[in-house]
Amino acid sequence: MTTRLLLLGAGRSAASLIQYLLRHAPTENWFLTVADANPAHLVPVLAAHSEYARAVPFGVENDALLDELVEQADVVISMLPAALHPVVARACVRHRRHLATASYVSPEIRALHEPAVAAGVTLLMECGLDPGLDHMSAMRAIEHIRARGGRLTSFKSYCGGLLAPAAEADNPWKYKFTWNPRNVVLAGQSTAMYLENGRPRFVPYQQLFARTETLSVPGHGEFEGYANRDSLGYRAPYGLDDIPTILRGTLRRPGYCAAWHALVRLGLTDDSVNLGNAATMTWAELVEAYLPASLIPHLDLPARLAAYLGLNPIGEEMGRLHWLGLFSARPVGHAHATPAQLLERLLGEKWQLQPQDHDLIVMQHRFGFELGGATRHLTSSLAVVGEDATHTGMAKTVGLPLGMAVRRLARGEVASRGVLLPTAAKLYEPILNELAAEYGISFTEEER
Amino acid sequence: MTTRLLLLGAGRSAASLIQYLLRHAPTENWFLTVADANPAHLVPVLAAHSEYARAVPFGVENDALLDELVEQADVVISMLPAALHPVVARACVRHRRHLATASYVSPEIRALHEPAVAAGVTLLMECGLDPGLDHMSAMRAIEHIRARGGRLTSFKSYCGGLLAPAAEADNPWKYKFTWNPRNVVLAGQSTAMYLENGRPRFVPYQQLFARTETLSVPGHGEFEGYANRDSLGYRAPYGLDDIPTILRGTLRRPGYCAAWHALVRLGLTDDSVNLGNAATMTWAELVEAYLPASLIPHLDLPARLAAYLGLNPIGEEMGRLHWLGLFSARPVGHAHATPAQLLERLLGEKWQLQPQDHDLIVMQHRFGFELGGATRHLTSSLAVVGEDATHTGMAKTVGLPLGMAVRRLARGEVASRGVLLPTAAKLYEPILNELAAEYGISFTEEER
Repeated sequence: MTTRLLLLGAGRSAASLIQYLLRHAPTENWFLTVADANPAHLVPVLAAHSEYARAVPFGVENDALLDELVEQADVVISMLPAALHPVVARACVRHRRHLATASYVSPEIRALHEPAVAAGVTLLMECGLDPGLDHMSAMRAIEHIRARGGRLTSFKSYCGGLLAPAAEADNPWKYKFTWNPRNVVLAGQSTAMYLENGRPRFVPYQQLFARTETLSVPGHGEFEGYANRDSLGYRAPYGLDDIPTILRGTLRRPGYCAAWHALVRLGLTDDSVNLGNAATMTWAELVEAYLPASLIPHLDLPARLAAYLGLNPIGEEMGRLHWLGLFSARPVGHAHATPAQLLERLLGEKWQLQPQDHDLIVMQHRFGFELGGATRHLTSSLAVVGEDATHTGMAKTVGLPLGMAVRRLARGEVASRGVLLPTAAKLYEPILNELAAEYGISFTEEER
Repeated sequence: MTTRLLLLGAGRSAASLIQYLLRHAPTENWFLTVADANPAHLVPVLAAHSEYARAVPFGVENDALLDELVEQADVVISMLPAALHPVVARACVRHRRHLATASYVSPEIRALHEPAVAAGVTLLMECGLDPGLDHMSAMRAIEHIRARGGRLTSFKSYCGGLLAPAAEADNPWKYKFTWNPRNVVLAGQSTAMYLENGRPRFVPYQQLFARTETLSVPGHGEFEGYANRDSLGYRAPYGLDDIPTILRGTLRRPGYCAAWHALVRLGLTDDSVNLGNAATMTWAELVEAYLPASLIPHLDLPARLAAYLGLNPIGEEMGRLHWLGLFSARPVGHAHATPAQLLERLLGEKWQLQPQDHDLIVMQHRFGFELGGATRHLTSSLAVVGEDATHTGMAKTVGLPLGMAVRRLARGEVASRGVLLPTAAKLYEPILNELAAEYGISFTEEER
């Protein structure tokens, strides 16, 4: 019997997912409907697979069409923006269809747990990269440590969407946008919370990018990590309620965070105020407006900025700010904007991924545990280089785990109902094994 | 003929307004209805005035009662929280009744301008202290300068609700809450914008309390001012569209801002994250959680904090933090709170106005102008000491201008319709004259 899959949203990050679903459709007996606002770009992709795939135009505001599509599916996959998932999930519960996504469980999704259980529906969330592959790989390592009799004392986990070395070469930040630029600009605008040796640690935004940790990934060099907003919420789903140290962080190449910290301190990441500026205002004028008027008027703008922020005027941070064009006569190009909107626009030009660029996904778990009276350390690292501008590392590491989770869901191998994360061995083991065997996506472990 | 006044909201800050309205009710032929959620405290106040005043219980969620009360009034005065004013103003437009408030014109109120004009209704906003008395006194000074042929080049205006010297004595911050504590804790959490010599100046929150200006008020000593969020919006209503320098600021006693800056940098004013803390967590534990773990472990907590923030460990900033109990074993007393909520709770104890305390309202306008080829400076200053815990400087300077504006409105002396500020001489001159003659509330001018 044919299993009908419905994929909602087929943006750039869905390419590897679609490829995976098409690859297995004949043998798994799937029929795939891809519903997207602009399905034109899907026509050539699906043309060779017309007997088991079709594209339909779809806008999420079309409630009637959403209901119709969900009703006609057995398993729904959503790659829509996370904010739209409650609408989709409610339709799935209403029509008793399973759902799989790569997005975080929001409070609205969590509230659907009981209704989903009652309807016999599985809402399988957080099955992409981060969240997704992080849960699966961390849980496998945690279960291995436990199986050996180890007692976990520390768990730090980092992930970053970065660049392969050739793509880094022309860019002192060693960073380009491989994901939502706005999220990168606004990253960390709260207080980060984690646990260290049994004590809470709070890091406010204005200190976040100055409080980094350096780590290295075999074969891929050094990175620095800054703490994510809430590391404490990971204790319960991982069964680590009593662990003394837990931290989740985001990876950048060394030097990025110190230079970003300068942008934060200057004020350019604020998104709460409309500056009322003209589009013709230059970047030099904008930066000038942030400096106290009385500051050493005979020095040029970069020197005054360096003095104001206490930076070495010929140091690496200033080099990165120069490279962005922060002191240039380039117009900001956007009237009546917030500082964050102007910065995003500037970075959008400077940090644009080029067609020949390859991205790099890096994930590292660092465990401390006690075993036989000794303290041991286990590092589990993953690095995935993108194939090309379509099958990026991001698209692969988000889409393939999600596709593999859908495969188990479609086969009826997921028995739990309600809101679910991929933290059970029965689900993550086959996915991690398939990723390693079929795609060479596997973690390298080091223990000492 | 009796003019029926309706006062909505009779909290603590309405005491002087009510006294003013009762004082003039017999001669102005007013009948005053005071509508408040808890009118019990009004009974003794109104008892001696029962022939021209009454109190009624009123909750703003009661739409029918609001309609009934507004319909039965000629002039409505609202001292309700500003967020409720659109509901009240819409009722006033519906029933063709004038409205007076001490609150800012919000976008929702602004949108009522045309409907109010069409209904023949005046919505007289911003008639308290700040906004209110600031408009009136600044416009009088501006008109005087213009009448002499002066050309304004600079306008800086500051206001603060502070303490009379005796009330400052036991408190190194020289500050207690005379107004909404939450607003004080969250003050400035955006980017402040002003103009200096024709150039925009932007000050992000994380620098705001480090970028102060010192000024002195004759007979009342020195103050420091930090910039308010948007100074630019004052150009149009004051007819100062081309002025090169304009700044609005808030006053504190010297030293407050540097110590508050330390709290901001530490992270204790963030209101965006729930710390998930226990109520029994101590202040020392909370502060500890903000310090990097590796920081010079052999020093005590205050010394490590001073080192972290680069403060003199025996300096005044640290003295103010010590005085708050920031390093004490006192429990934070509020579980699952934001840092700002915990700070507000602590400050609520330490900065509580005592029955014997007198507050002090300070306002200063600083004008620069060109006259006869010379540059001149005019300073216009106001200081009002509260009479007692009821008729505070705040209650008087908010309530009396509002009461006086209502008096002109009730007499039919305000001809303009729609949304109005008190920036016309015909309205502010009699109010400023009455404040000076009857209450000794007047500005001192110095020119050089």
